[in-house]
Amino acid sequence: MIRPWTRLQSIPLGDFKVFRLRKDLKRSPRTGRTHEFYVMDSVDWVNVVALTPDRQVVLVEQYRHGTDSVELEIPGGLMDPGETDPVQTAVRELREETGYTGVRARLIGEVLPNPAIQSNRTYTVLVEDCRCTHPVQFDQGEDIVTRLMPMDELPRLVASGRIRHCVVVAALYHFDLWQRGLKPTAADPVRSDAQGPDRCTPTSSSEGGFGEG
Amino acid sequence: MIRPWTRLQSIPLGDFKVFRLRKDLKRSPRTGRTHEFYVMDSVDWVNVVALTPDRQVVLVEQYRHGTDSVELEIPGGLMDPGETDPVQTAVRELREETGYTGVRARLIGEVLPNPAIQSNRTYTVLVEDCRCTHPVQFDQGEDIVTRLMPMDELPRLVASGRIRHCVVVAALYHFDLWQRGLKPTAADPVRSDAQGPDRCTPTSSSEGGFGEG
Repeated sequence: MIRPWTRLQSIPLGDFKVFRLRKDLKRSPRTGRTHEFYVMDSVDWVNVVALTPDRQVVLVEQYRHGTDSVELEIPGGLMDPGETDPVQTAVRELREETGYTGVRARLIGEVLPNPAIQSNRTYTVLVEDCRCTHPVQFDQGEDIVTRLMPMDELPRLVASGRIRHCVVVAALYHFDLWQRGLKPTAADPVRSDAQGPDRCTPTSSSEGGFGEG
Repeated sequence: MIRPWTRLQSIPLGDFKVFRLRKDLKRSPRTGRTHEFYVMDSVDWVNVVALTPDRQVVLVEQYRHGTDSVELEIPGGLMDPGETDPVQTAVRELREETGYTGVRARLIGEVLPNPAIQSNRTYTVLVEDCRCTHPVQFDQGEDIVTRLMPMDELPRLVASGRIRHCVVVAALYHFDLWQRGLKPTAADPVRSDAQGPDRCTPTSSSEGGFGEG
């Protein structure tokens, strides 16, 4: 059983536009020792799987400053102040970035971008019957090209590494699973009483080390 | 066609253990205006899909400080200084975190954790015929429980949100695609001459706005 750590202190380190950074001092419940952890706080993010009536998916290409590269992605963005419903954010971001609007917008997935160092969530929203209805509205510093691609190409785009933005890949897995009938409301297959071994018991050392390195 | 931005200046802001932060001043090739961007530099990460001879997958539960929650994940970690091969890192992290070792370790996927604000990569390595052969070796501040789960449960664990670490979800999509015969070396289905519309041309406004909000 994993127990939570006790937070002894939290020091804000700065505001860096899309995130704030803090340093937390925490005590381990296992060893009693204290450690420092850095955490990034940011608003939640939303991404959108937008399908046209002929089952094409609306993709965007944009220059990404973290990697200095042009990436193929699905539309998305940060939740604006006052937005509390990820579906609302998804519809807005889709329209602003691509000019497309659609129907039956619904939540199909939720992930933690990086629970080790980030506190926020990312939601995936599916929108169907999307059509180009509005002019695009880029944010300052955005430079986006829209591409339509047959929906059935998505698995190959991910496997080949053509789509490699982790948050987009996770969203497309949720979409893949949704297509296979696995919904986010499905019962948790981990039984509450399931408990793996706390530590494995190594077999004799003569069996160890095979295939390493 | 998306053009790269010109970097005019880069200012280091600090070292926060698992990442360094910098502020870059860049000029937009579209507008000529300058903007500031914050980027986190860190070493590359590796995660491991480890299968036992009876097709169970080795999962780990651990407390995550970004979200203050216990998350179900696959083993993984940072590439150590001197490690240049993600397969080597994967084999080491699997053994240290879980005590398991196996055979046929191979790269099955690669993503960018967040190309908007992070410069690093994450690799996914598959290891088969894993058995418990070593005692675990936790890093300071790690507190990890190992769980074995039938491999076929993975899609449901992701769909239900039981597994929700984004980097892990992306890795499991690569594993899912690998099982379906879609390999990372598959030809890129985006033809090099493929070029979507730069902007969509909105249809008449009477058709707009359906289903929004």
